[in-house]
Amino acid sequence: MKIARFSSKGEDPRYGILDERDLVVLAGDPMYQGFETTGERVPLADAKLLAPVIPRSKVIGVGLNYAEHASEMDERSGDDPVVFLKPNTAVIGPEDPIRLPAGVGRVDHEGELAIVIGSLAKNVTREDFASVILGYTIANDVTARDLQARDGQWTRSKGFDTFCPLGPAIETEIDPSDIRIETRVDGDLRQVGSTSEMVHDIPSLIEFVSSIWTLLPGDVILTGTPAGVGEIRDGEVVEVTIEGIGTLKNPVIARH
Amino acid sequence: MKIARFSSKGEDPRYGILDERDLVVLAGDPMYQGFETTGERVPLADAKLLAPVIPRSKVIGVGLNYAEHASEMDERSGDDPVVFLKPNTAVIGPEDPIRLPAGVGRVDHEGELAIVIGSLAKNVTREDFASVILGYTIANDVTARDLQARDGQWTRSKGFDTFCPLGPAIETEIDPSDIRIETRVDGDLRQVGSTSEMVHDIPSLIEFVSSIWTLLPGDVILTGTPAGVGEIRDGEVVEVTIEGIGTLKNPVIARH
Repeated sequence: MKIARFSSKGEDPRYGILDERDLVVLAGDPMYQGFETTGERVPLADAKLLAPVIPRSKVIGVGLNYAEHASEMDERSGDDPVVFLKPNTAVIGPEDPIRLPAGVGRVDHEGELAIVIGSLAKNVTREDFASVILGYTIANDVTARDLQARDGQWTRSKGFDTFCPLGPAIETEIDPSDIRIETRVDGDLRQVGSTSEMVHDIPSLIEFVSSIWTLLPGDVILTGTPAGVGEIRDGEVVEVTIEGIGTLKNPVIARH
Repeated sequence: MKIARFSSKGEDPRYGILDERDLVVLAGDPMYQGFETTGERVPLADAKLLAPVIPRSKVIGVGLNYAEHASEMDERSGDDPVVFLKPNTAVIGPEDPIRLPAGVGRVDHEGELAIVIGSLAKNVTREDFASVILGYTIANDVTARDLQARDGQWTRSKGFDTFCPLGPAIETEIDPSDIRIETRVDGDLRQVGSTSEMVHDIPSLIEFVSSIWTLLPGDVILTGTPAGVGEIRDGEVVEVTIEGIGTLKNPVIARH
C-alpha cells in the first residue's frame, strides 16, 4: 500500500492511499489514526503530492553506507555507521524545487532509500526492526559538497532549506533488502545500486540509531547513497527511482 | 520577565511567569498566544519546572565559540561558526537526570547561554537580530567526549537522550552581550566565562544560522561553551548559572 500526503484545490493537506489514477482519501494521519477511508476519491491529476511525512523530531542521515560511494569520497566505511541530522525545515515534496544557495559552490544529488518510523522506539534489536517501521519512501540527501569538505562537520552542507526532498509516497509492504536505486539528472543515469550493497543493513541501522536516540513516529532515516554522486545545476531535473516505491522528481533552481 | 513551563499536581504542562515564590499562570503558550494571564497563581513549591520550550524543528549548536575553550580542545575557532544539531528527543528540564549511556567513556558538561527563537526567520541581518528572539535560557550541551573524537561527526556524541538540559526559564528582557556563565559540579566551580568573550557574537550567530536555515518559533540556538569543560560522573550534580537568568541544575546518573 502506498500512502501519500496531498493537497487539492487549495485545501489543507490530507492523506490518501495512492493507486494508479486516484487517491483514496484517509480519515486522518495514518501514522496516528490508522487506515480508515472516507469513501472519497481524488483523481491524481487534481492533487499536488506533498512530502509524505514532516518529521517532528529527527531526519537521521547515515554516511558512507555503500562501499563504492565511500571509495569515491576517499573515505572508508567504519565499524559503526556515521550519523548526522537534517532539520525538518529542509524537507520538500515531489516536484518542489531544490534551491541552490548562493556562494556555496558545488551541490550534489544523493539518491537514497528512506525509512519512515511508525512508533516510539528505543533499543530495538535487529530481530524486531520491522515492528517500528511504518514504511519506506525515497529521499535525495542533497549536499553542498565544497562546504562539506571545508566545514568538517556535515550539518550545514546537508541542512539548507530544500535539501531533503522526500516522496512521492510511503510504501508499507515492500521488502527493502534488495531493491534497485537509480538517480538520473535530466534523464541521464548517474547513480545506480541495490540496497543489498549497504555496509550496515536496515536491521543494523535500526538497532544502531535506536541505541542512541528515542525514535518518534514520523522520524525518517536516510540509509546512505550508492556510488555516482555528482553535481546538480540550475535548470536541471533530478529523479531518484526506487523499485517498488516510485520516482521522486525535483527541479533544481539557483537562488538569486 | 521569566517564562517557565511547568506541571503541578499531575496536570498537563502549562506556562507561567516566574516570580520569587509563584508562577502567574498564562492562558496559553506565550510563543504563539502572548502573555495574557488567567489570574491563577501556583506556588513554586507546588510546581515542577519543565524544559521551557520543546523545539519542533531545531536545536542548533555552535562549536568552538570561546577562544579559550577552542584552545583546550586543541582546535581553533574559524571564520565561520561551526554548527551542529541536537534532536528534540535530547531535551530535558531542570532537575531531570542526565543519563550516561553505557560504554561511551567520558561524558562532559558544557554550560551555555541558549537563544530561544520567537518568530519565523530567514536571512536576518545583524541589526535585526533582536526582532526574532523570544528570550534567553540556560543549556547544558552534554557531550560524550571520547565518541566525539572517534566519530569525527559530532551528532552522535551530542545527541543522546537527556543530553540537552534546558531551563529553568526563558528571560525575555536581558541584555545578553556581557553576562557571566558559571558551571559547577557538586558545588565546585569548573567553567567560568562571560558572553562578551564569544568569538561570534549573538547578532552574528543569528545572521549566520538564519542564512542557512529557516528558523521556526521554538528553535533553540546554543551559543557555545567557555573554557573548563570536564567530566560528569554517576551521582554528581551539575549546575549552570547565568547572571540574570538563573541556575539549571541536573543530577547525573549512569544507565544500567
